[in-house]
Amino acid sequence: MARSLMFFILFSIFAISPISCYTQQHPLDPLTANELTLVQAIVKKSYPPPKHNLAFHYVGLDEPDKPILLSWLSKPTSKLPPRRALAITRIDRQTHEIIVDLGTKSIVSDEVYKGIGYPTLTPDEQTVAIQLPMSYGPFIKSIQNRGLNVSHVVCSCFTVGWFGEERKIERVVKLQCFYNENTVNLYVRPIEGIKIVVDLDEMKIVDYVDSHKVPIPKAEGTDYRFSEQKPPFGPRTNGAVILSKGKNGLDIDGHVIRWVNWQFHLAFDARVGPVISLASIYDTEKHKHRTVLYRGHISELFVPYQDPTDEYYFKTFFDCGEFGFGQSAASLIPLADCPNNAVFLDGYYAGQDGTPVKVPNVFCVFERHAGDIMWRHTELGIPGKVVNEARPEVTLVVRMVATIGNYDHILDWEFKPSGSIKVQAGLSGILEVKASEHTRVDEIKEEIYGTSITDNTIGLYHDHFLTYRLDLDIDGVDNSFVKKRLATKVATGKDTPRKSYWTVYSETAKTESEAKLQIGLKPSELAFENPNKKTKAGNNVGYRLIPGALIHPMLLDDDYPQIRGAFSNYNVWVTPYNKSEKWAGGRYLDQSQGQDTIAVWTQRNREIENKDIVLWYVMGFHHLPCQEDFPLMATLSGAFEIRPANFFESNPVLKVINSRPPMHLLNNSSSHH
Amino acid sequence: MARSLMFFILFSIFAISPISCYTQQHPLDPLTANELTLVQAIVKKSYPPPKHNLAFHYVGLDEPDKPILLSWLSKPTSKLPPRRALAITRIDRQTHEIIVDLGTKSIVSDEVYKGIGYPTLTPDEQTVAIQLPMSYGPFIKSIQNRGLNVSHVVCSCFTVGWFGEERKIERVVKLQCFYNENTVNLYVRPIEGIKIVVDLDEMKIVDYVDSHKVPIPKAEGTDYRFSEQKPPFGPRTNGAVILSKGKNGLDIDGHVIRWVNWQFHLAFDARVGPVISLASIYDTEKHKHRTVLYRGHISELFVPYQDPTDEYYFKTFFDCGEFGFGQSAASLIPLADCPNNAVFLDGYYAGQDGTPVKVPNVFCVFERHAGDIMWRHTELGIPGKVVNEARPEVTLVVRMVATIGNYDHILDWEFKPSGSIKVQAGLSGILEVKASEHTRVDEIKEEIYGTSITDNTIGLYHDHFLTYRLDLDIDGVDNSFVKKRLATKVATGKDTPRKSYWTVYSETAKTESEAKLQIGLKPSELAFENPNKKTKAGNNVGYRLIPGALIHPMLLDDDYPQIRGAFSNYNVWVTPYNKSEKWAGGRYLDQSQGQDTIAVWTQRNREIENKDIVLWYVMGFHHLPCQEDFPLMATLSGAFEIRPANFFESNPVLKVINSRPPMHLLNNSSSHH
Repeated sequence: MARSLMFFILFSIFAISPISCYTQQHPLDPLTANELTLVQAIVKKSYPPPKHNLAFHYVGLDEPDKPILLSWLSKPTSKLPPRRALAITRIDRQTHEIIVDLGTKSIVSDEVYKGIGYPTLTPDEQTVAIQLPMSYGPFIKSIQNRGLNVSHVVCSCFTVGWFGEERKIERVVKLQCFYNENTVNLYVRPIEGIKIVVDLDEMKIVDYVDSHKVPIPKAEGTDYRFSEQKPPFGPRTNGAVILSKGKNGLDIDGHVIRWVNWQFHLAFDARVGPVISLASIYDTEKHKHRTVLYRGHISELFVPYQDPTDEYYFKTFFDCGEFGFGQSAASLIPLADCPNNAVFLDGYYAGQDGTPVKVPNVFCVFERHAGDIMWRHTELGIPGKVVNEARPEVTLVVRMVATIGNYDHILDWEFKPSGSIKVQAGLSGILEVKASEHTRVDEIKEEIYGTSITDNTIGLYHDHFLTYRLDLDIDGVDNSFVKKRLATKVATGKDTPRKSYWTVYSETAKTESEAKLQIGLKPSELAFENPNKKTKAGNNVGYRLIPGALIHPMLLDDDYPQIRGAFSNYNVWVTPYNKSEKWAGGRYLDQSQGQDTIAVWTQRNREIENKDIVLWYVMGFHHLPCQEDFPLMATLSGAFEIRPANFFESNPVLKVINSRPPMHLLNNSSSHH
Repeated sequence: MARSLMFFILFSIFAISPISCYTQQHPLDPLTANELTLVQAIVKKSYPPPKHNLAFHYVGLDEPDKPILLSWLSKPTSKLPPRRALAITRIDRQTHEIIVDLGTKSIVSDEVYKGIGYPTLTPDEQTVAIQLPMSYGPFIKSIQNRGLNVSHVVCSCFTVGWFGEERKIERVVKLQCFYNENTVNLYVRPIEGIKIVVDLDEMKIVDYVDSHKVPIPKAEGTDYRFSEQKPPFGPRTNGAVILSKGKNGLDIDGHVIRWVNWQFHLAFDARVGPVISLASIYDTEKHKHRTVLYRGHISELFVPYQDPTDEYYFKTFFDCGEFGFGQSAASLIPLADCPNNAVFLDGYYAGQDGTPVKVPNVFCVFERHAGDIMWRHTELGIPGKVVNEARPEVTLVVRMVATIGNYDHILDWEFKPSGSIKVQAGLSGILEVKASEHTRVDEIKEEIYGTSITDNTIGLYHDHFLTYRLDLDIDGVDNSFVKKRLATKVATGKDTPRKSYWTVYSETAKTESEAKLQIGLKPSELAFENPNKKTKAGNNVGYRLIPGALIHPMLLDDDYPQIRGAFSNYNVWVTPYNKSEKWAGGRYLDQSQGQDTIAVWTQRNREIENKDIVLWYVMGFHHLPCQEDFPLMATLSGAFEIRPANFFESNPVLKVINSRPPMHLLNNSSSHH
């Protein structure tokens, strides 16, 4: 397939159909291509180009207020809540927040944002910006001076961050350029020593410095495309097909997905990618669905690099707010990104001019048969009897991949029949590297802020902090966050040969300040309980948080990137529901000054006991690169889980029925021996 | 199938074949049934019953000293090292450590162990012991007094631990009895108030107290067998078959397993279950196998319960040393414990009289196609080009399940083509519970040391500490343990707008005391490096440890159970190779006093830099039971991973070839729509 055709198919502009189909919509459905087009038309009508310089930076569903949606859910045959879109636009160098009513086809509100920070960059403006150097004399000269050919140079946009500057800085980015001769792996061949600052609103280079030269790392061995590999090949692995009866138990009805005992709504958002809403699980004993998660999505990703030098100090990225996870989503590759039994779904976002852009295969949904054991027991303790019972685990995975420049972030939501939801993030793609004079570690005398991973190449130290927003509704809207602290008790005087044991003290967090915590400092179990509902045994109905890959920030609290990424100060935050608090680093991340982070919101120290509360969980990795990360990284994953704890009266999968697989295929298949 | 027949098939005594086949053996192969029989014959000849009271408590391979084995490996055509067995026996109330030479068919050494502690209990003696109460007048009376029927009573053996007693206590266990009328789930129906102490060497009840009555929890809803379930059933999940080409890429040659780029030896041991040896990975660039793991296995499991009261204080179990993971292994159930593409292997251990006992399907080995992504990248940053490359993850899993009474421990070793070895433990089975007067939480005024999980039932708080022994040989025998400490650096005065960044300080542990650590206190990466081998870039060849589920002990350091389970004091220990140091809690765990734990061994503070070193890793869970754990727990898993870090020159799976799956089956299959 020709590359241009491939590009066309992957990112084709969606043809506008004149027929709308609002009547079948769920109030949480993402904006359709038609709706995006309608928003475009309505906003353009008020700010017609070319009279106005209009750019769409984010267009998404302005979701109904939760009480309104809950009211509708209680009677889904009633009138749908008003369908509205939020369009964050730049109009004549100002940021506008425009609310469009899609029913009345009118602008409901239009406010100019005069605060700190800028909206998410558009892919389109980045595409234009990276071309600027190619016709910029000093740059061409710099490239020629290095003995390089401009036709092999590719640049990329990097947000500039904020480092205490008091005056307002224009909407600028820095470009870093790479040499992709004989490789598509541009990121591993940085051209060092050139500073390029582009004003995106002016769309011109406003600062340019060529300060020094560094050898460009070699191209050899860096291309990762299968077509470009040379022997020796290997290892050789087996592909497999997974066969089960029926449609993998999957029922996809619009954006509502039903599988085994779960149902939830899956939407695509340009900023955060997959949004899971209204996840509820069927309780076999109570004969009804019970709510678990009102809305869950990744909220922000903070990636501070640890090189303070002139060309790298500013690399402290916020990928959701600055670049947009949804609009950076990859088209998933069948049989590679997702197994054969996956179902693929498309997504749409607004291009810079408001035109809908389709991302085919933006999600895949598949039943996972990983060979795990759901539960088991062998009983040999009853004389004359052998009991040997086991059930295979089967789960459902929802996947999206966001590729922000070099890094690919694999976002998985996994639903288990036992009631657990596992949220996993995998990191793959290309390491961010810096070119170096050196080819061997022993030549290096100075601090290099990373690992020497191959000739002339340093993999820079960095962190990944991924924060997720989970608006939990554990069997109802009002929940409490309960820290169950484990504490050693001295047993002396208790008429026992033991000297000690541990017990549990439950502390219900009354306000936001009581809920912030760094996991790992004190042993505890973290529970989200519905204090208004009790099990027969008298326990509060609840879920527990099972943490996974965790880190704590290493930057000073008052360092500028840490102020901006203050959501990483704690692994857990709990806030009362507030529709406007979706993005843990703030709405305007580009050049933000930490003015709108969860650290600021929670200073109000609102009450959170027996309220509609939201969990913010921060997972993370300290990344010390190694040679295996080059030229491309094998996936490194982290996860956390929410798991029922006294939510059900007893094990909800005790009576699971696992249908017999189509075993006849094993015998009929000539491929299997 | 009749139960008695099932029992026969599962645990049939292996028919002895007169033909031995030593010549095909690998020096690390577990003892065959023939060899076990030979050991039995040789020992019986020296201590003929009934003149001697002889019982085999452990018979296993006395593995060759590592230098001898390495020497043989360097020339596998040379003469095999002497093949020897270690038989730990009780002979006339004394513990004997007997080394048998299987070649010369003679006893090489026979030493009486006069130290503290007793060997692993045999399943056979437990089977006899639990029958004693059934003909013990006072017990029958106690049962009748409770209005119960002795025919529904099942007892179970519990080791008594050590609580500071200074005089030597006979080899006794406590029995706890359960009521299994209308259920096979005996553990959730404890008969409280009865203390029974059995002397195992005398095989009689030596202490009996009936102190009080507590209602027995109900049987209803506790049976977990599918055949006993009543509606409503559900959830309903799909079975699946996994089809790939060929034999799943698996090549099993005796006990040597080759798969994709891995090869390793898999042996069964009565005490620790699966033993992985000589794991090495093929380096495509260097055209050779390179060593990673000389020998790896679970070493001990410490499960302290947190109820200090009279009937429960002693429950502080060491499942490997006291009960034996291998001899407690379950026969894995096809399509439930392991997927359709699994290969099953059998194991043999010596029964109490020395006769080999076969455990069919003790291991399964299968290729996992979980739908994960090995690596991927989408590149849209090159104008006019779209690159979208991904490779599906395929891994190999080796599984065994050890069922110690109520708990099922799922032990997985997962090998990834990228060089990673993931070691996972899953916990399922039945919770240990205590009967209570109460049916609801709000009736409870006193401390209950657990969670009220259903009527009259308390799930007791407890911990699981699993320690693994990994004799790493990272590209050679001599390795160092390097702690790479992350530290914040203040950037002031460095001519940067940043205030801070972090960097890494490598500390090579010179002695054992420098290697002990609790993970989570200080951010660090933990590496095992071969200081004698460097990559082209000049890094030491190495692997890193990626920790997973972790806990730290909560008991006082000087509490007796903690002294015995002192290996749980740290998550990481590193020792120099010593053939006799296999079991982190000591060789004789039953009634041990901590005389032989890794905490004692490491007091010598031996040198470990650039030596043949062994990693001991302790994973763990604090278990706060919840209602979902009743009547049987869904699997809770934890894992850790060792992952190459500068072991390869670059990503070893860049050139992976994933064979196309047999897709034609998708179209031909009538079961798939």
